[in-house]
Amino acid sequence: MLYLVHMVVRIPDTVPAEEAARIKAAEKEYSQSLQRSGKWPSIWRVVGEYANYSVFDVESNDELHTLLSQLPLFPYMDISVTPLARHPSAI
Amino acid sequence: MLYLVHMVVRIPDTVPAEEAARIKAAEKEYSQSLQRSGKWPSIWRVVGEYANYSVFDVESNDELHTLLSQLPLFPYMDISVTPLARHPSAI
Amino acid sequence: MLYLVHMVVRIPDTVPAEEAARIKAAEKEYSQSLQRSGKWPSIWRVVGEYANYSVFDVESNDELHTLLSQLPLFPYMDISVTPLARHPSAI
Amino acid sequence: MLYLVHMVVRIPDTVPAEEAARIKAAEKEYSQSLQRSGKWPSIWRVVGEYANYSVFDVESNDELHTLLSQLPLFPYMDISVTPLARHPSAI
Amino acid sequence: MLYLVHMVVRIPDTVPAEEAARIKAAEKEYSQSLQRSGKWPSIWRVVGEYANYSVFDVESNDELHTLLSQLPLFPYMDISVTPLARHPSAI
Amino acid sequence: MLYLVHMVVRIPDTVPAEEAARIKAAEKEYSQSLQRSGKWPSIWRVVGEYANYSVFDVESNDELHTLLSQLPLFPYMDISVTPLARHPSAI
Amino acid sequence: MLYLVHMVVRIPDTVPAEEAARIKAAEKEYSQSLQRSGKWPSIWRVVGEYANYSVFDVESNDELHTLLSQLPLFPYMDISVTPLARHPSAI
Amino acid sequence: MLYLVHMVVRIPDTVPAEEAARIKAAEKEYSQSLQRSGKWPSIWRVVGEYANYSVFDVESNDELHTLLSQLPLFPYMDISVTPLARHPSAI
Amino acid sequence: MLYLVHMVVRIPDTVPAEEAARIKAAEKEYSQSLQRSGKWPSIWRVVGEYANYSVFDVESNDELHTLLSQLPLFPYMDISVTPLARHPSAI
Amino acid sequence: MLYLVHMVVRIPDTVPAEEAARIKAAEKEYSQSLQRSGKWPSIWRVVGEYANYSVFDVESNDELHTLLSQLPLFPYMDISVTPLARHPSAI
Repeated sequence: MLYLVHMVVRIPDTVPAEEAARIKAAEKEYSQSLQRSGKWPSIWRVVGEYANYSVFDVESNDELHTLLSQLPLFPYMDISVTPLARHPSAI
Repeated sequence: MLYLVHMVVRIPDTVPAEEAARIKAAEKEYSQSLQRSGKWPSIWRVVGEYANYSVFDVESNDELHTLLSQLPLFPYMDISVTPLARHPSAI
Repeated sequence: MLYLVHMVVRIPDTVPAEEAARIKAAEKEYSQSLQRSGKWPSIWRVVGEYANYSVFDVESNDELHTLLSQLPLFPYMDISVTPLARHPSAI
Repeated sequence: MLYLVHMVVRIPDTVPAEEAARIKAAEKEYSQSLQRSGKWPSIWRVVGEYANYSVFDVESNDELHTLLSQLPLFPYMDISVTPLARHPSAI
Repeated sequence: MLYLVHMVVRIPDTVPAEEAARIKAAEKEYSQSLQRSGKWPSIWRVVGEYANYSVFDVESNDELHTLLSQLPLFPYMDISVTPLARHPSAI
Repeated sequence: MLYLVHMVVRIPDTVPAEEAARIKAAEKEYSQSLQRSGKWPSIWRVVGEYANYSVFDVESNDELHTLLSQLPLFPYMDISVTPLARHPSAI
Repeated sequence: MLYLVHMVVRIPDTVPAEEAARIKAAEKEYSQSLQRSGKWPSIWRVVGEYANYSVFDVESNDELHTLLSQLPLFPYMDISVTPLARHPSAI
Repeated sequence: MLYLVHMVVRIPDTVPAEEAARIKAAEKEYSQSLQRSGKWPSIWRVVGEYANYSVFDVESNDELHTLLSQLPLFPYMDISVTPLARHPSAI
Repeated sequence: MLYLVHMVVRIPDTVPAEEAARIKAAEKEYSQSLQRSGKWPSIWRVVGEYANYSVFDVESNDELHTLLSQLPLFPYMDISVTPLARHPSAI
Repeated sequence: MLYLVHMVVRIPDTVPAEEAARIKAAEKEYSQSLQRSGKWPSIWRVVGEYANYSVFDVESNDELHTLLSQLPLFPYMDISVTPLARHPSAI
């Protein structure tokens, strides 16, 4: 079951640079492990922004929320979720 | 080169039903031919809306505009385009 | 799996009054059959508006879109869907 | 009398972590006691967000404001309230 | 129990002038009967707009929706409702 | 001459708690003295929000701005003002 | 007493061209008579738009609404009104 | 003196097809004559939309409004104008 | 050449009170010198807000930007500029 | 391939003045080197704002994101990107 997820990252100035670097490294590792598992089939950078559009492929709303809320950057992101269905013109 | 495209369809009441049906059939045929060509790799229905999110894979901004402006439903759609780049965490 | 669905009805003037009445009666029958089936556990009127908030309980995004797109008023509604998950404080 | 309530939590960085944890624990306890009393029949997590949609069942606008303003997280939430009425199609 | 109600009137061109005049006369009569009953204690014109802000004093959300949905102009108005509570500084 | 005034209070974290308490007490006293004078005939809490809707009855735009800008919470409020006129249906 | 008034003109296609011309001529005459009276001291075209910003100088909210609602184009305009006060830096 | 101008074209269904074609041809001719004169140095299509971003180089606000209001499509466009100044980093 | 300028002042808490007072005094002096020069013919307070609407009369976009960017409060204001043209109904 | 890029600069108070000056100097140097290379053919100041509109001429979405994300002010800017295509009326 697919969802389009838009994530905008806003790390406040109060987070020390090393802490921010550590969180971003953890985020990358977590993201890549979900990508390898097939749960997160696509992630694209929005040109010019510290933001991404992603596609998630999960079993349920609850699974999606669990995955997203465990993102190391979750406290510093504005996330919006659009549930997707099969399009009648899709081949 | 990838773009996320959001299309919302608003066919006004003044379009006769048969004309609308003819346009939708032409739209489906055109969409499927672009999907088969690899230019339109993904199309998803937004749940609950007469709208889709699509990914296009084209050579240039000009090619994308040409493809979109030839959609049979183009006069009846609100389209917004987000250019995408490779995400540094993408595997 | 739960979704909050917001529906705003806008029947244009061009729909004849009897046709509008027929569509509304069909909508009511369809809604009540889904409510009885357990797929549509809650529907509330938004005070002062020709709109409702509803909770749907379905198996998948695709099932939800199928149910919503078969609403007799679907062509005349602005619908937005919010996927819901279990809240950690829910008893 | 039912109300749909949307709560978005934004705890600023200036709140120390232990203080935030204490407030969240108090919030959970308060929420669950209201849920048990029947005043707060439903609470759902919005997928991907630190936010919830809830249904409250109270006697009056004043009672609802009293309950909401006593939420331990009240100073850190954006709350919006939609009054609900019985829907003519509800079974 | 008080509610602030904002009503914006948009009568489409397709309503014949006499029909519009008839609806407005019925609206005025209905409004004044509710004002006399005490249910609609205040109505003010928004300067420069075909709109009003009103205060309603009713027993419940359901009563308010019933009153509003019986407004002769209801099909031609955008209405939004804000529930009000006693302010701690009110004398 | 009447105005509807919407005030949203946002006291930043940087204001010490005692200072905030002092300002709120002064605000209450000032508000009640204006209410007693007849300049501020109505103040209502917006349910679920640290906000109010108020009606002011003053001689001029200048008098209203003077009254509002002297509110002890003025530096911490987002205020918007809607000028009101007599409604032709008002009794 | 001054007000800034923003007027956007939207004459629908359903108004015949001669009727539109007649209304615009009446609007111009009415506007110029108010300008001559001192009630409407300034009117400026917004560059690129069928819209204007104007300053009105009137005795009261009620007088302003009366003047605006008698504009021949009133049924075809979106008007918003901002009450102005003397600025402490004004010379 | 430069201005960025955003134009969105919305020709309503009520304009007959030949009339629309005639207007668009006149628009193209007018636009190209202004481009040749140096008044309209740049015009770009917004990808996926019936809209353009343009740069105008004129002597004054009045000249710009005169040029824009003479566009054959002016009655069917939403136009917004952003005045531009020399950027201190421009070479 | 006239422009309508909207300025909203937001001085953050981090600016010490004396520094804020010094900036405001410099702003007043600068504003009054421009008013006297005829470049800034009108400045009005927006009722209830720490904001103003102003009219500037300058030779060019560049001159306007130079004047605005030298405002002592410039770093603490949200400014938006609307270019104005002569209105055909202006007397 | 052309893109319109809108950049709004918001340097928070927490950045020391010398650090801000250093970043702005680096930004200017970087911007001018890209302008000289032909990648950034136009940059204009938005009148009254700490913002610019720019045109970029690059090979791909990825190249544009790389250039923008290396801007020294990138962490302190809100950037939005509009892909442009050749306009059929462009000479």
